[in-house]
Amino acid sequence: MTRSQYDLHLDKNPANFQALTPLSFLERTASIHPDRVAIVHGRMWRTYHEFYARARRLASALSKIGIKPGDTVSAMLANTPEMLEAHFGVPMTGAVLHTINTRLDAAIIAFQLDHAESKVLFTDREFAPVMAEALKLAKVKPIIIDVDDLEFPQSGSLLGTQEYEAFIDGGDPSFAWRWPADEWEAIALGYTSGTTGNPKGVVTHHRGAHLMCYANTLSAGLGRAPVYLWTLPMFHCNGWCFPWTITALGGTHVCLRWVRAKAMYEAIDQHKVTHLCGAPIVMSTFLNAPAAEKLAIAHKVEFITAGAPPPAAVLGQMAAAGFNVTHVYGLTETYGPSVVNEWQGAWDALPAGEQAQLKSRQGVRYPALGDLRVMNPETMEDVPADGVTLGEVMFRGNIVMKGYLKNQAATEESFAGGWFHSGDLGVRYPDGYIQLKDRSKDIIISGGENISSIELEDVLYQHPAVSAAAVVAKADEKWGETPCAFLELKPGMTVTKEEIIAWCKEHLAGYKVPRVIVFDEIPKTSTGKIQKFRLREMAKRV
Amino acid sequence: MTRSQYDLHLDKNPANFQALTPLSFLERTASIHPDRVAIVHGRMWRTYHEFYARARRLASALSKIGIKPGDTVSAMLANTPEMLEAHFGVPMTGAVLHTINTRLDAAIIAFQLDHAESKVLFTDREFAPVMAEALKLAKVKPIIIDVDDLEFPQSGSLLGTQEYEAFIDGGDPSFAWRWPADEWEAIALGYTSGTTGNPKGVVTHHRGAHLMCYANTLSAGLGRAPVYLWTLPMFHCNGWCFPWTITALGGTHVCLRWVRAKAMYEAIDQHKVTHLCGAPIVMSTFLNAPAAEKLAIAHKVEFITAGAPPPAAVLGQMAAAGFNVTHVYGLTETYGPSVVNEWQGAWDALPAGEQAQLKSRQGVRYPALGDLRVMNPETMEDVPADGVTLGEVMFRGNIVMKGYLKNQAATEESFAGGWFHSGDLGVRYPDGYIQLKDRSKDIIISGGENISSIELEDVLYQHPAVSAAAVVAKADEKWGETPCAFLELKPGMTVTKEEIIAWCKEHLAGYKVPRVIVFDEIPKTSTGKIQKFRLREMAKRV
Repeated sequence: MTRSQYDLHLDKNPANFQALTPLSFLERTASIHPDRVAIVHGRMWRTYHEFYARARRLASALSKIGIKPGDTVSAMLANTPEMLEAHFGVPMTGAVLHTINTRLDAAIIAFQLDHAESKVLFTDREFAPVMAEALKLAKVKPIIIDVDDLEFPQSGSLLGTQEYEAFIDGGDPSFAWRWPADEWEAIALGYTSGTTGNPKGVVTHHRGAHLMCYANTLSAGLGRAPVYLWTLPMFHCNGWCFPWTITALGGTHVCLRWVRAKAMYEAIDQHKVTHLCGAPIVMSTFLNAPAAEKLAIAHKVEFITAGAPPPAAVLGQMAAAGFNVTHVYGLTETYGPSVVNEWQGAWDALPAGEQAQLKSRQGVRYPALGDLRVMNPETMEDVPADGVTLGEVMFRGNIVMKGYLKNQAATEESFAGGWFHSGDLGVRYPDGYIQLKDRSKDIIISGGENISSIELEDVLYQHPAVSAAAVVAKADEKWGETPCAFLELKPGMTVTKEEIIAWCKEHLAGYKVPRVIVFDEIPKTSTGKIQKFRLREMAKRV
Repeated sequence: MTRSQYDLHLDKNPANFQALTPLSFLERTASIHPDRVAIVHGRMWRTYHEFYARARRLASALSKIGIKPGDTVSAMLANTPEMLEAHFGVPMTGAVLHTINTRLDAAIIAFQLDHAESKVLFTDREFAPVMAEALKLAKVKPIIIDVDDLEFPQSGSLLGTQEYEAFIDGGDPSFAWRWPADEWEAIALGYTSGTTGNPKGVVTHHRGAHLMCYANTLSAGLGRAPVYLWTLPMFHCNGWCFPWTITALGGTHVCLRWVRAKAMYEAIDQHKVTHLCGAPIVMSTFLNAPAAEKLAIAHKVEFITAGAPPPAAVLGQMAAAGFNVTHVYGLTETYGPSVVNEWQGAWDALPAGEQAQLKSRQGVRYPALGDLRVMNPETMEDVPADGVTLGEVMFRGNIVMKGYLKNQAATEESFAGGWFHSGDLGVRYPDGYIQLKDRSKDIIISGGENISSIELEDVLYQHPAVSAAAVVAKADEKWGETPCAFLELKPGMTVTKEEIIAWCKEHLAGYKVPRVIVFDEIPKTSTGKIQKFRLREMAKRV
């Protein structure tokens, strides 16, 4: 491109260019609303002045023990104030925050600590047993700082030599924290669940985390000073960037150690919670609470959910209980939600069933996402927007990860052709909304025909005796693969394999009907995800 | 800095990095809400599908006549749909949109066209007389496209050979528009009013305009799908970036050629306007409308104002009329508002007078602004936050301009020391809020003491006979400078110089009392700004 008059003497300088970072949000809010309540945890609360001072103490204390830009600081914490502080204090040193799923087993934790080359570990007494085991297995020897949470009254050992409060006491509350030299610098590291092989370490950056704060604001309609209940684990994609988002808006973080109905209803009632996020299990916890624990909610509460699409009955019950549910979808690789079921005003007039069907679709791209496509991964061409043709869901934009840590092959594979390949299969409807149909590795190819395991599972779930269903491919000499269904039955119910096959024949095209039915317990990960790779092993043996 | 594991094989690629631009917002909204009403203009309305298609037609038509990246396209337009389209269609070619204040005289317009090296000019029949004259004076010969607005029924000549509708008819509605190669690329050019010497051309970029959309959203509490009334001229700092902001949110733009009470009340009532911006004159227009033109506003309307701080009486009347007023401050160099009087909940309990006093302060930095200081420009040190000590207001961050076009000296001067020097003098209060006191060139230094001309004017305005007041420095052998006051009186009122001086002595420290009083008409610019440089000339002669 030839240079024009607009390229001359109009360069970046400290007055007109700054690296984007979500850390600036805490500094701004603390300076404008120092006395506003930033964090509530049980009976404890802190202002933004205190929140900022404590985050700076943490950064200062980490610097004093030698933490420097590019180091990894790990955290195995519940949704406590210390975890919020870590989201600011750790990157304020230039280090990268590695959050650990608290439900993992010792071997995987040890793998993560070693792979991340962790220098410091924050851990909570609740997780001391598994963490002690993990530390024995790990090669790295991080400095261990124990969080001794007041809201965890049970015993449980302290693993390190220093407690969090004592540690940050040694830090300077007016520490001159490090602004990232480049907005592309890493801010966080989170491992994918690794249902197949070793977990991959997703690296995100300051630019993306900053933009996600704005995107969350628009997408969730956060408005000024929201009150946010921490029902979504912060270890999960950095709580979808809400530690930074709520802070940007000067909102109140209401911490919560456990997703329990009584505590959630009380928090909503007492603090007038306006927003919360969570998997469908959080909705069930609300709805299935004993009557004595349920409190009437007088104000409208926004509930943002991801995972399985919310069924019509649940949506109806949630609305009756005072919640407006928004359905989102994303991956660790996209900072959490990057697709939102943006509601169209015209849909308000539709019957509840149709509304639920529309809401079950994953939707359209998030505000900060550049592009969202459903493509044939071979040709990289869009599938027709017919609601039927399967393709792989692909992402592009500033809220896509930097890549996988120390895994160049996986990074390159995931970015092949200039798009992030989600591994999720879906369709696009004529109105542009997408709907997931399957994980690409979960698709069953039988006689050259693609069979969606989700479609089969949907039919199986509708059988009155079935409580859980999972379908995987089983190698077959004639067909290549055939569907193999694993079923758990409701208590006291019985059904024969023949009855299940008859049910499927009634509801599915013949080639999709499972050839093999297995009644057995279905293996799940610590986070409740069905482990299809184990089922595939089991399928080989039946 | 040593490289860490986070710097290896984790580079930018088309999947995870895109230049920020506000243009992407139109594409996204049009794809998600194609049938939503984007623009209303009189009885005409258009959907987002149409808005996007027309913007692309415009970009395509411009490309066809040879417009390329780095070219300047000028627009002298009212707040019509074509002006909104220009905010997208022009930068979609990589060209820079130069907006012209429609109240300027021919000589200044000619200067701007020449200085900007304008290649294409969009002009409206209303401005044909002055534009015809300007084109005679200008050396450049831009291609002229006439906008023949349906809402401007009066006659008025067409200056070019082509009308806007015919021009874009030749464009392709699915034109593959040009994404900026770099988010630092120029998007717009706007000239400062130039009360002293030639106007300076402020160049802004795609990155800043993109971030301003988020900042406006947070700051004005825009929420989902706002309905925005165009009372602020779009030629003024690109309408504070609201053409892009409202589009990002899928809101409705309600166009308006003239700030007239009847049309404004009707638009608010008919379209359920939620937000509008404007100078204090817009508020007076609402409040001073004949009773027959006033309509009761049943819903809450957010009014964002800049310029003179809103007085208590006006705030009270605005509240009674259904408006919530937010006070902002900024400059063309900061994309419009970059300081906001962010309201503190605790202030709600204060008496109206105190609330008005608090609201009269300019406030705190905008969400996307990195830093805002009041500094001694000699030492570049912060003034004490005492509400008294004067300093220069300085800005830093991503919503500060690239610089002044073809004016390296002015650019370097304005960015001296790594801060943008606003030229405005103000104080900082203990709570961090800033308040403007004067333009630095308007300060009067008498006997070594700084005298704020604004403070004197405030006192003079309070005199019952005074309708307008302006104070400038007059050279004085003994004192260096002394204050010289120019006054306009209310119809039918009289007052003597002695009475004015007595009034000032009663309300001001002795050294601040004006030595010279002049009763005369006060010269103003086309936009109503008092021309102090002319008053300084007049002061020499009295």
